[in-house]
Amino acid sequence: MASRLSTRQLCQGLSRGSSQRLVLAPLANQKRSLATPAHPVTQDETGSKGPTAMVFMNMGGPSTTDEVGDFLSRLFSDGDLIPLGRLQNYIGPILSARRTPKIQKQYSEIGGGSPIRKWSEYQNAEMCKILDKISPQTAPHKPYTAFRYANPLTEEMYQTLLKDGFGNGKGGRAVAFTQYPQYSCSTTGSSLNDLWRWRHRLEGKTNEANPAGSITWSVIDRWPTHPGLVEAFAQNIEAKLAEYPEERRKDVVLLFSAHSLPMSVVNRGDTYPAEVAATVHAVMQRLKFSNQYRLCWQSQVGPSAWLGPQTSDTVENYVKKGQKDLVLIPIAFTSDHIETLYELDLEVIGDSGHPDTVKRADSLNGSPVFIQALADIAKDHLASGQACSFQMGLRCPACTSERCGESKRFFASQQQGLDSLLGVKA
Amino acid sequence: MASRLSTRQLCQGLSRGSSQRLVLAPLANQKRSLATPAHPVTQDETGSKGPTAMVFMNMGGPSTTDEVGDFLSRLFSDGDLIPLGRLQNYIGPILSARRTPKIQKQYSEIGGGSPIRKWSEYQNAEMCKILDKISPQTAPHKPYTAFRYANPLTEEMYQTLLKDGFGNGKGGRAVAFTQYPQYSCSTTGSSLNDLWRWRHRLEGKTNEANPAGSITWSVIDRWPTHPGLVEAFAQNIEAKLAEYPEERRKDVVLLFSAHSLPMSVVNRGDTYPAEVAATVHAVMQRLKFSNQYRLCWQSQVGPSAWLGPQTSDTVENYVKKGQKDLVLIPIAFTSDHIETLYELDLEVIGDSGHPDTVKRADSLNGSPVFIQALADIAKDHLASGQACSFQMGLRCPACTSERCGESKRFFASQQQGLDSLLGVKA
Repeated sequence: MASRLSTRQLCQGLSRGSSQRLVLAPLANQKRSLATPAHPVTQDETGSKGPTAMVFMNMGGPSTTDEVGDFLSRLFSDGDLIPLGRLQNYIGPILSARRTPKIQKQYSEIGGGSPIRKWSEYQNAEMCKILDKISPQTAPHKPYTAFRYANPLTEEMYQTLLKDGFGNGKGGRAVAFTQYPQYSCSTTGSSLNDLWRWRHRLEGKTNEANPAGSITWSVIDRWPTHPGLVEAFAQNIEAKLAEYPEERRKDVVLLFSAHSLPMSVVNRGDTYPAEVAATVHAVMQRLKFSNQYRLCWQSQVGPSAWLGPQTSDTVENYVKKGQKDLVLIPIAFTSDHIETLYELDLEVIGDSGHPDTVKRADSLNGSPVFIQALADIAKDHLASGQACSFQMGLRCPACTSERCGESKRFFASQQQGLDSLLGVKA
Repeated sequence: MASRLSTRQLCQGLSRGSSQRLVLAPLANQKRSLATPAHPVTQDETGSKGPTAMVFMNMGGPSTTDEVGDFLSRLFSDGDLIPLGRLQNYIGPILSARRTPKIQKQYSEIGGGSPIRKWSEYQNAEMCKILDKISPQTAPHKPYTAFRYANPLTEEMYQTLLKDGFGNGKGGRAVAFTQYPQYSCSTTGSSLNDLWRWRHRLEGKTNEANPAGSITWSVIDRWPTHPGLVEAFAQNIEAKLAEYPEERRKDVVLLFSAHSLPMSVVNRGDTYPAEVAATVHAVMQRLKFSNQYRLCWQSQVGPSAWLGPQTSDTVENYVKKGQKDLVLIPIAFTSDHIETLYELDLEVIGDSGHPDTVKRADSLNGSPVFIQALADIAKDHLASGQACSFQMGLRCPACTSERCGESKRFFASQQQGLDSLLGVKA
């Protein structure tokens, strides 16, 4: 009753006493924002539980070389990704400033920027089209992108959601869909911590987990052995193997390459190495173990210990042993980015001395099999009514990050909101 | 002709001039050995391709505390397991001598010895009984055990095979069946190098890979995600979970524990960490991800870097976080041994402060599901006609061991002998 009165008083105050300028300015802004190709929230007739915002989370990459500085600055200030302890705010900017010219040069060599935004938006839009058909009850599905270190950042995505009519008193449902198939605290964990931070800043300042009318979030937090993902990888490997003469094809060695982790993160109990290994095993099972293979790890930086064997060393060592037919397979990232286009293609393959026989399987990018897999994963998630995987709730044994604890508690707490949204009885 | 003459001359010499004592002594020995319960090679009517020697390979363990010194001495002198480089022969004995009293004490606390021989012999005998039924064409199947560091050692097993009528001009087939489900150069690799060494010493001094009448070997070198193995693990986990009150059962955290590896071995490209992770994922899929879980690594020794997170730390950290319902699952060893009975049960659980809620799933030991799985794996292998897995032929990228190279070449070369034994046309 009190809140109804105050709302009425506010409305009266606005119509009576406020200057037209104050009232119209936000309206004009609103019109401008509606003129951009935002995603209006309109209830589809079939979508009794829609609309649903589908938010792709990923690290992102600078779209132009001018954005490299900001990108690296955000990256090195992320303690979830690069744990520099209390010196983070001091060392981070030094490291990013020092690396900017080198990384700018790398981006200019792969065409001036990362294709990750283009691919993310394409994959998400195509997935939503399929979802509208195979999950009509949660339609319409609206694609959003939230990058951790590049535009569109999590804050920008969240502001767009609010502008589009989600939350801010209107409720609605959003799915945070990590685009890292295997869970790491450094990647998906960092994105979720960022999402939790912005949720708290933009619509959760109360102590309640689910303030009335706020967005109800659920999370697709890992999908390392989804059959559609496995099939998409396998098809791209088979296509690359077909480029070798038939008599050599069976003896090509497959090198699955994933971004490495510092041993401090591995020893803390991060689940990523085991989930990457599970993906590799599933892909090899699908290929009926047709070729010999190894899992190796790339992109180690700095003097601390990282998980190996290192991809570049692995290629060098096999070439030295006389094994020159090698296919590199990026197994922990779903579209091209600097680690494939520059590090694998230009550095590892370029330096191998055998660029004709050391090849790389295509990234998943626009693979229709992959996009169908995304839709299947999302459909299953929407049908499950689960806020997140059960496994996500378990912190790493040696985790001391309060941020991780809070964030995990928040996403688990969304189950209540989700149950009430979906009409599930307790 | 020359050799026939000399043989005849030798026989003449023996019958004419040798003392009866010299001739009879070996015969008497032979009689004694035949009087022991050895495995006579008799062709089963149904077994057109039998008999088949089924050799279980494992690390072994001292059956009594008196055997601990020899066990450790062999263990620390194995460069495949504990790479001490050129100092192996110097440091190995020092380390083993220093550790002997401590390890003797541990064995005396678990009943005076390792049960691994008992379980290996039981599992193998039971498996062979099943194999005789489900693979009659390779029957009879004869069980043998070859331990790497304890009796019966590889040499002893090989001598028994020869005494039993395999090889030494009589040919026949033997299967080296590793009892480590996941392949590591430190474990299965070391056992195979040892087998190759004894094969070379006892029946392969020519340069030929398959001297006429020698034993034809094939290898079951890894089986990390065999459905029967996965089922056996899953059933033992479910049985342990059933010991918790129903309302707490879902919140028990599963801690899969495998023997760790030095990071030098991991970074060389050993396949073990990824294959252990594949087992864990397969078991969790079978359990429908019913509980939260982590993979951790135990038995780290010495000052060098090993793969983590460490099992003991993991239990300690979760207990500190308030998670006291934990089930430890030994996931890389198939029967009880000091790492389960002493390290997990007495040390990790004993030191946890919560021995009633921190529990351990039973080892596979006499599990009929597991023994059926062993038989199924062996049957598939026998039917495949393959000398070893394709993957086994690929050396680790940073491997520099000529021993490994030679051993892998030898086992791959057995394909030719196997094809001719099985009547496969090239």
